[in-house]
Amino acid sequence: MNPSKLIIKKRDNHSLTRKEIHYFISEYIKNSKVTDYQMSAMLMAIVFNGMSEEEVYYLTDEYIKSGISIVFTNQDGKYIDKHSTGGVGDKISLILAPIAAECGVKVPMISGRGLGHTGGTLDKLESIPGFITQISIERFKTIIKENGYAIISQSDKIVPADRKIYALRDVTGTVESIPLITASIMSKKIASGIDGLVIDLKVGHGAFIGTMKRAKELAYMLTYVAKKFNKKIRINYTDMDTPLGMYIGNGLEVIESIEFLKGNMASDLKEITYRLVEDMLLMTDVVKDRNHASQLIDKAISSGKALRRFQKFIELQKGNPSVIDDYSILPQSKHKLVINAKESGYIKKILSRDIGYALIDVRAGRKKMDDDLDYASGLKLFKTEGDQVQKGEPIAELYYDNDMGEKAAKDILRSFIITNHKVKVESRILGSFNQ
Amino acid sequence: MNPSKLIIKKRDNHSLTRKEIHYFISEYIKNSKVTDYQMSAMLMAIVFNGMSEEEVYYLTDEYIKSGISIVFTNQDGKYIDKHSTGGVGDKISLILAPIAAECGVKVPMISGRGLGHTGGTLDKLESIPGFITQISIERFKTIIKENGYAIISQSDKIVPADRKIYALRDVTGTVESIPLITASIMSKKIASGIDGLVIDLKVGHGAFIGTMKRAKELAYMLTYVAKKFNKKIRINYTDMDTPLGMYIGNGLEVIESIEFLKGNMASDLKEITYRLVEDMLLMTDVVKDRNHASQLIDKAISSGKALRRFQKFIELQKGNPSVIDDYSILPQSKHKLVINAKESGYIKKILSRDIGYALIDVRAGRKKMDDDLDYASGLKLFKTEGDQVQKGEPIAELYYDNDMGEKAAKDILRSFIITNHKVKVESRILGSFNQ
Repeated sequence: MNPSKLIIKKRDNHSLTRKEIHYFISEYIKNSKVTDYQMSAMLMAIVFNGMSEEEVYYLTDEYIKSGISIVFTNQDGKYIDKHSTGGVGDKISLILAPIAAECGVKVPMISGRGLGHTGGTLDKLESIPGFITQISIERFKTIIKENGYAIISQSDKIVPADRKIYALRDVTGTVESIPLITASIMSKKIASGIDGLVIDLKVGHGAFIGTMKRAKELAYMLTYVAKKFNKKIRINYTDMDTPLGMYIGNGLEVIESIEFLKGNMASDLKEITYRLVEDMLLMTDVVKDRNHASQLIDKAISSGKALRRFQKFIELQKGNPSVIDDYSILPQSKHKLVINAKESGYIKKILSRDIGYALIDVRAGRKKMDDDLDYASGLKLFKTEGDQVQKGEPIAELYYDNDMGEKAAKDILRSFIITNHKVKVESRILGSFNQ
Repeated sequence: MNPSKLIIKKRDNHSLTRKEIHYFISEYIKNSKVTDYQMSAMLMAIVFNGMSEEEVYYLTDEYIKSGISIVFTNQDGKYIDKHSTGGVGDKISLILAPIAAECGVKVPMISGRGLGHTGGTLDKLESIPGFITQISIERFKTIIKENGYAIISQSDKIVPADRKIYALRDVTGTVESIPLITASIMSKKIASGIDGLVIDLKVGHGAFIGTMKRAKELAYMLTYVAKKFNKKIRINYTDMDTPLGMYIGNGLEVIESIEFLKGNMASDLKEITYRLVEDMLLMTDVVKDRNHASQLIDKAISSGKALRRFQKFIELQKGNPSVIDDYSILPQSKHKLVINAKESGYIKKILSRDIGYALIDVRAGRKKMDDDLDYASGLKLFKTEGDQVQKGEPIAELYYDNDMGEKAAKDILRSFIITNHKVKVESRILGSFNQ
């Protein structure tokens, strides 16, 4: 086979065969007959011409075969993970995992870091002093056996093809491609030994997927690949126009997560978290219907057991478990700046992408993968979508520790869209994918 | 500036500014902030989304500025070159240059090698024992001053950007792009100091441009860029469905060129050569109209002066000038194989691309840039488009020196399309570009 002929084949909108995909990926991974510059040309051709379902399945399979796959031998319970396509204020993994585990699901969560305007679960957890996410696969299994769940960082041994190709996509403008996103998500999840997967597919201003049309295309492709590998999958479309919950920033989101598990829940966060955990439970034989699942979740929280599981999780991953009762253990920021409404009215939207970018300025997020974070910096919303505000009234508070606070505060103020009319707050669940 | 943001800009079908094109090309050429894999992703995005006229002009200018430009100080006559987009049996440069020079045009020709199914002028000339094409720019100027023309290979110093980027395009499936083809052709021609350029834009089975639609797009872009640089340009579309002339192969085409200059002209070769030289003369003040130009060409040939100029040219570039009278000086092939018609009828077409590929098997052409050529191998046509043939009658003779002769002969036989009906031979000039 000839790499440039395969690039031309894809460029001219023909499908690649399983053998051709195997050749192109495997030769690239072993640094042999396919070079970086040939891979990037192929990736760009895929961005333009897409791939058939079969091609995406072969690509995912090739990704998986580039490394090892986890096999869980302990079979008391289903292994089900949740994946979010990334949002602003999205701390659901921190809350969902202990609740689902308390309800009897095993949650083997391999998570990522934040990049651009969206946050990352690992960064949030690492704001807890001592907390580690680089854990061997053997220890990962042991922690799940003991406490029902663990959240660790990607291992070099699992799907190295995705790691290498993702790094290339990041610098060649080839991230935004449904076939490539599908193979990247599904290969890692399938190699991590799951039985089923619940997807929180975020749509809108603060999401990587801007429109429902694109979201449906991605959902179709994810579902196709899951079925080919005999994995259960449920996909919800959720709105990311406005940040999720009331706190945004790494340490602040840990606090909001603990408060949630103590029963103090922002309504939007509650709605989506319940929905996703219900979907996880519906993949097992633990519950008979969504209502039953919802009751189990209520109980896991009100009993304090989900919170205790979260505390145990922190302890097992070497973090300071006292954080549950003492938020002063978390990094504290030097400066706080109250942001006041510039006009009276009702909050129609808080543009979440703009909030995300403003928080990068105070180092709550990263521009580049090797940027250092300030775990203490971030934003507390006092008011959110639908709330009435008076001119001059505090609507948010910015936490920061560098000289970018005033600039960030201005950008944040601008991201509040205020209207004269009363605003009806819609459900953040936009629908689910049903094939 | 950020290379991946510029790639995304082009990917999303926005135009790049002059500064952005400068940054991307210059950083790539100096091996600095733009890598091979970023360039190949950008090239693929250009293949899909194209470039505006302005962008192509900026790109061409950036290419030119990557190296030196030739300036001709001797001003007795216009410096006009001819460029062919590549065909099968296309030896026109060898014939046209001495005729045009004899008619008073200066022809500073910087030529290329054959790749794939098409031949290259340098390869043909190098079949003459001793002939050299790697010549300093100073010597190039001197030869032109003395004999009116020279044909040399691309210098490292002229448009190094095109050299580097072309090598990348060749292995990343990004050759077929009108903006990239335009910048590649025009940058080299403009940097070689011309006042005007005549283009033989080949269309059809044996050409890189398959359709008139694409040919017109390319012609428009070439003309736009030429005008931006204040260069005269004339573009003819010529048919490449059937090979040009009766001999195909490096040494064989030298023979056909000499025979042409002696007055023995294949009609198709004569038609196009006259047309192109006329166009060159029409760019000067040597002639008053096309008819006058044609008479000058007739005289240049019938007087034997164009042939003598060709002989002088060979001598000046260290080749053996006796080849004019003694073809046995050229490399001779061991084997000859007569190919007979498999049916009676009229030749409708001889599929030139297939002929080109068949001749690669006997090493008259190259698959890869570093393949060695057999200068003696090739094909003599006894019959061509429109000719009547009887079953079993010799229609061509293959010259070769390896074990691929029989296979090539079969492919060649298959490329003769024979029909029952009499075939009207159309003009090979399909039109010219008029803005």
